[in-house]
Amino acid sequence: MRLLNGQPQDVISMADRAFQFGDGVFRTLRCEGGQIEFWQRHYARLQQDCAALGINCPAEAVLLEDLRIITPVDAAIKIIITRGETIRGYGTSDFLTPNRITQCAALPNYPKDLHQQGANVRVCSTKASWQPALAGVKHLNRLENVLARREWQDPSIFEGLMLDRDGWVIEGVMSNVLVLCDTHLFTPKLDQSGVNGVMCEVAFDAALQHGFAVEKRALTLDDVKKADAVWLTNSLVGLLPVANICDRNFMPHPAQALLSKAVNHLRQLEKFTIVESPDMPKG
Amino acid sequence: MRLLNGQPQDVISMADRAFQFGDGVFRTLRCEGGQIEFWQRHYARLQQDCAALGINCPAEAVLLEDLRIITPVDAAIKIIITRGETIRGYGTSDFLTPNRITQCAALPNYPKDLHQQGANVRVCSTKASWQPALAGVKHLNRLENVLARREWQDPSIFEGLMLDRDGWVIEGVMSNVLVLCDTHLFTPKLDQSGVNGVMCEVAFDAALQHGFAVEKRALTLDDVKKADAVWLTNSLVGLLPVANICDRNFMPHPAQALLSKAVNHLRQLEKFTIVESPDMPKG
Repeated sequence: MRLLNGQPQDVISMADRAFQFGDGVFRTLRCEGGQIEFWQRHYARLQQDCAALGINCPAEAVLLEDLRIITPVDAAIKIIITRGETIRGYGTSDFLTPNRITQCAALPNYPKDLHQQGANVRVCSTKASWQPALAGVKHLNRLENVLARREWQDPSIFEGLMLDRDGWVIEGVMSNVLVLCDTHLFTPKLDQSGVNGVMCEVAFDAALQHGFAVEKRALTLDDVKKADAVWLTNSLVGLLPVANICDRNFMPHPAQALLSKAVNHLRQLEKFTIVESPDMPKG
Repeated sequence: MRLLNGQPQDVISMADRAFQFGDGVFRTLRCEGGQIEFWQRHYARLQQDCAALGINCPAEAVLLEDLRIITPVDAAIKIIITRGETIRGYGTSDFLTPNRITQCAALPNYPKDLHQQGANVRVCSTKASWQPALAGVKHLNRLENVLARREWQDPSIFEGLMLDRDGWVIEGVMSNVLVLCDTHLFTPKLDQSGVNGVMCEVAFDAALQHGFAVEKRALTLDDVKKADAVWLTNSLVGLLPVANICDRNFMPHPAQALLSKAVNHLRQLEKFTIVESPDMPKG
């Protein structure tokens, strides 16, 4: 199901700048049992990303009303905010009316034991682009992710790592990367490339609460291979241990169960109820 | 007027990957008096760009039929080819059916003496991204052009130059750049960033025919400022002399009239008639 500005709709004007230029931002949210995980964090990030591109971000209440209309129970929700519609050319004005899209799909059908087995990860030859004006922002220019994802068909490979021009590890095609070295948890600094994911931030908070030192820094592929443990994060898969990268095996490691439990605790704490469960008394 | 796969249509499915990811390519064509300039070159480039992204390019006859349906006389035509529609995620298959869009707008209303006066050009602080997998391709991920175009409002400034991370001049926000040093005509090598424009290629051919040496190479802003003459090119404005960049004045220069005439000659030669002129006898 899809809403366009609060109304059921499956099509959009071809004058919309997301279609013409990829001129917009998005968020992917996990909804389980009618509860959206980490809504406050997602909305804060949406505001930041809109501000980075000069797009007017819809009010929180407006988006929540959209979510109530689509009444998801278990769903992968995508919110797209476009800059709006223009006739021709890159030029914009600050007074365009954004289009907001709320769409709902089934949660991905991950293998049942994915989190126990861990993810098989390859290294992509498609590089992450350098673009500080867009780094960190979850924008709609995602062609490099599409090209990187086209590099493999093998369904046993869950994710591909993307490095930048200088060999720094940036992210997975659809996830962020966390690396444990002793008691230090690292994730790549994304000030030149990549997307700042909410679940990565959650994992950092969880790790900090459990006495790990956390730091954003530049990491080479060698740094990653030499790590004690590696995880992938995104809003749908949550915190996912990496089983191996390029024949280097990372499992099992005691921090995996610990961090997983800590993240799950935050998932329980930071839920926003959209649809009341029918078997729970209201109020 | 817009066509979607040959049918009049102003909207597109939100499942289209151009809307979701900017997953597609485009061409901008100039049509004057029912004749499209440089059609063969544009179609060849469209095929190359589709191949670079693994998109199935529509047959030439199909696109020409679209153009006949919209019967443009004087128009800026944009052709968009998207990878097609999918439900969720970056993953694609090679068997998606592309969507093709043909849209028509009025030709830009340039000041009457623009080509005589030349263009005032500024330098953008938004940088051109580094991404060899997309360099040269006229794809739909155009956020950096949008951000760069947002840097100025002054209508007397026609264009902004975009440099890359290392200070190499890449292109204008909506044009390519040509630089004359003595009898050598240079344009930036676009193997890491930027878009290869058809009109730039035309200007190179025209220059070659008139005894200039032509070369694609890396150019700094200093190289550009020290040049004898500078031009911008795109399919709508054609070959446009630059009046000044950062207080450096370039006009007049004898090569301007010469190259302009040579390019106009190729424009006359390489026209493709879509709409027969009513005052010309057919056949």
